[in-house]
Amino acid sequence: MDDLALRLAIGDLNAAYADCIDDDRLEDWPDFFVENCRYLITDRQSHEAGLRHGIIYGASKGMLTDRVMAMRKANIFEPHRYRHILGPPQIGRVADGIAEARTNFLAVRIMHNGDSQLFATGRYLDKVAIAEPLRFVERLVILDSRKVDTLLVLPL
Amino acid sequence: MDDLALRLAIGDLNAAYADCIDDDRLEDWPDFFVENCRYLITDRQSHEAGLRHGIIYGASKGMLTDRVMAMRKANIFEPHRYRHILGPPQIGRVADGIAEARTNFLAVRIMHNGDSQLFATGRYLDKVAIAEPLRFVERLVILDSRKVDTLLVLPL
Amino acid sequence: MDDLALRLAIGDLNAAYADCIDDDRLEDWPDFFVENCRYLITDRQSHEAGLRHGIIYGASKGMLTDRVMAMRKANIFEPHRYRHILGPPQIGRVADGIAEARTNFLAVRIMHNGDSQLFATGRYLDKVAIAEPLRFVERLVILDSRKVDTLLVLPL
Repeated sequence: MDDLALRLAIGDLNAAYADCIDDDRLEDWPDFFVENCRYLITDRQSHEAGLRHGIIYGASKGMLTDRVMAMRKANIFEPHRYRHILGPPQIGRVADGIAEARTNFLAVRIMHNGDSQLFATGRYLDKVAIAEPLRFVERLVILDSRKVDTLLVLPL
Repeated sequence: MDDLALRLAIGDLNAAYADCIDDDRLEDWPDFFVENCRYLITDRQSHEAGLRHGIIYGASKGMLTDRVMAMRKANIFEPHRYRHILGPPQIGRVADGIAEARTNFLAVRIMHNGDSQLFATGRYLDKVAIAEPLRFVERLVILDSRKVDTLLVLPL
Repeated sequence: MDDLALRLAIGDLNAAYADCIDDDRLEDWPDFFVENCRYLITDRQSHEAGLRHGIIYGASKGMLTDRVMAMRKANIFEPHRYRHILGPPQIGRVADGIAEARTNFLAVRIMHNGDSQLFATGRYLDKVAIAEPLRFVERLVILDSRKVDTLLVLPL
């Protein structure tokens, strides 16, 4: 895959991933990851300090599926949606069938009553397996702010 | 037109459309549509329920022109501008000279006194006539929130 | 450099520029400009009125370096960061080794305590020297709002 094709493909992956969440098709969300994946939502300062834990964490596709099921069952949170606005992906090192990429994002949260607010900004730090279809080996969601709403239940 | 060219051209169309509105050149806005067009601002829930009406509706280029003229004449609203931030377009089905596309957007509203606020987020669902220059056959503006400000007078 | 390559290269320049600021690597910020540059933050109305001064102004790379050093030394402001969300660049006239481009942006400000808010929206009006690496000959930051926070100390 040449440079441009990779850039476009990762941009499309990012867009499809965001749509999946924003459209509340969360059952499809784990399919964006390989079996042996790592998904982590953390904040910039924890990330820079080298901390490996996070607010939401998954070390396999199965854990992500479990999380979605728990979320659907418990359902104690106030219904809401996100709208992701993504910048273009910046492609980093490509080696051994894995491409590194990072992408800035902003997420607006829309509550059931229609109230909208700026919810989170940050950066995706990704490792993408270059195969058809593209899948995340790792997606680190680095939030800009440590002040994380207690309502962070949906993936970002 | 190949895939990449189409993607770039629709991205350019989106950008020019947003600039036209954000720069208050509303008289040029109808020119982004073919004569026999459909323009609709609605919200996600109404759209999913299959409702065909909306907050702002135009079934021809002439109706869009009329709307702009009325807006300029009446002019009873408090002056304000938008700033659109657009994601990349996702191209869907292309057939019979029409390309389907969807694009996420965020609009900030800047009031005359300088106050800025997150005004709307949502998705454009478009049908674009593939001819030079590109024009919208249909642009559905699907707002994420039902809570629509009474000040929605400018197109989005 | 063909059309597409230029578009991608300017998109990358924009992304690297934003990352430099958002990552607080301000000492590297002047390197995005040629020696004989012009950097200006102003608002739309002042810009349209033809006013040449601005809120932050630099007429050479040296002036930008001085500004960063002063900022680091004084350090009387409350620590904060930005997160830029950028639209795609629109390329204008290309002549004599200079490409004109404009790009919409939104900046969120994240305070040290974690509070985030929509800080500024606007448009970059750029002149870019087409050489390896790409550098700004001129970057005008045209804010949508005249109401500028007194806390505007970081470049945008």
